[in-house]
Amino acid sequence: MAVKIYGNPVSPPTRNVIASLYEKGVEFELVVLDLLAGAHKKPEHLKLQPFGKIPVYQDGDITLFESRAITRYIATKYEGQGTPLYGKTPTEKALVEQWVEVESQNYSPVTSALNFQLFIKKLFTGEGPDEAAVAVEVPKLNAVLDIYEARLTESKYLAGDFFSLADLSHFANTEYFVKHSGKADLITSRPHVAAWWQDISSRPSWQKTIAYCSF
Amino acid sequence: MAVKIYGNPVSPPTRNVIASLYEKGVEFELVVLDLLAGAHKKPEHLKLQPFGKIPVYQDGDITLFESRAITRYIATKYEGQGTPLYGKTPTEKALVEQWVEVESQNYSPVTSALNFQLFIKKLFTGEGPDEAAVAVEVPKLNAVLDIYEARLTESKYLAGDFFSLADLSHFANTEYFVKHSGKADLITSRPHVAAWWQDISSRPSWQKTIAYCSF
Ligand SMILES: N[C@@H](CCC(=O)N[C@@H](CS)C(=O)NCC(=O)O)C(=O)O
Ligand SMILES: N[C@@H](CCC(=O)N[C@@H](CS)C(=O)NCC(=O)O)C(=O)O
Repeated sequence: MAVKIYGNPVSPPTRNVIASLYEKGVEFELVVLDLLAGAHKKPEHLKLQPFGKIPVYQDGDITLFESRAITRYIATKYEGQGTPLYGKTPTEKALVEQWVEVESQNYSPVTSALNFQLFIKKLFTGEGPDEAAVAVEVPKLNAVLDIYEARLTESKYLAGDFFSLADLSHFANTEYFVKHSGKADLITSRPHVAAWWQDISSRPSWQKTIAYCSF
Repeated sequence: MAVKIYGNPVSPPTRNVIASLYEKGVEFELVVLDLLAGAHKKPEHLKLQPFGKIPVYQDGDITLFESRAITRYIATKYEGQGTPLYGKTPTEKALVEQWVEVESQNYSPVTSALNFQLFIKKLFTGEGPDEAAVAVEVPKLNAVLDIYEARLTESKYLAGDFFSLADLSHFANTEYFVKHSGKADLITSRPHVAAWWQDISSRPSWQKTIAYCSF
């Protein structure tokens, strides 16, 4: 049975899952859900994902949700092929998990909030950003990126000198932030963060992912 | 070299890490950081944890931060002893990761916000809750707990019929919510959620963890 993703090619967590499949060379079928039509709140989707969100992953007889749980599963199940997304040793794996958590706890909330304020809101409501919210989030992102800059001075990628799930987890939010927020300089003004983004976003896995839907 | 935790026994993520060590029967030393004195912002702590947070874990020559990365490492490194915190099969492990992510993405933000509004804020500022914030978060928690209630009707624990990291990740925020929020009925009025909490919070690992500091 082929791997199936229920998702949408503009959805950040769907994109990260797709990128992980490309890193592993796993073929898959993307079942596109029309979010504007509420496809993710229909009973048949709620059976797969009780929170009514995307993406959902199916592979053999396993059905999974939550993008970071899905990418971990892909990294483990397809360990023997493609990019070793957890590194090679238990210590490398521990550092991958540490930086995946940093993304989840520190980077994702701030970049999601800024992407929402700075362009997603406009698309859906026509309204401009809540400048007070932006003023709260920008210093938080600066603080996180200062730590990334220091870290990326020590090692080429977040978990060490190897591309991993830690970097991959940053793909989708960073792409939108750099492309649409009007604040790309937060990334490009930091030499090591800028070089890291240039490097990882050039990977074929990511270029193929965004080619799905060039927004 | 003994396992060391730099943390504080009232800190929720420190507590979850301690509980995971008790589940595994791993001895450790807790180095208590005085948060009110800013010990977590001192240069020697920032060398271990660049975000200036607790807990930090040291074991042999590995130093790790982010509680969910630490508990994953403990579950993996001490796989052969104590409670199998990832279950026993790759599918069980995948479901554990799914529900750890649900806790991280859906449960933790809401219970952390409510615990802050409903009692932590009072302790630190003397001020009462922002009722508008509470009114936003309570329906979100109800929605999450409805999904937990349905899930726990199907299986005894979140990831299946075995206690795992998925349940353990809920310890600290739920303990404070039930004890101090004044809204414990959100948990206790749902029969399966209530029975699950009764069961997991009675585990010796959790009882020993909270005995450290009975707040
Ligand atoms: N933490 C989840 C987030 C999933 C998520 O929020 N997906 C969005 C689309 S990008 C969604 O389904 N939103 C619809 C909703 O929340 O109702 C993951 O990483 O998979
Ligand atoms: N996501 C982190 C959260 C760590 C955290 O926020 N710890 C709190 C204490 S409970 C802290 O250090 N706060 C101080 C601060 O953020 O400045 C984890 O799970 O370890």
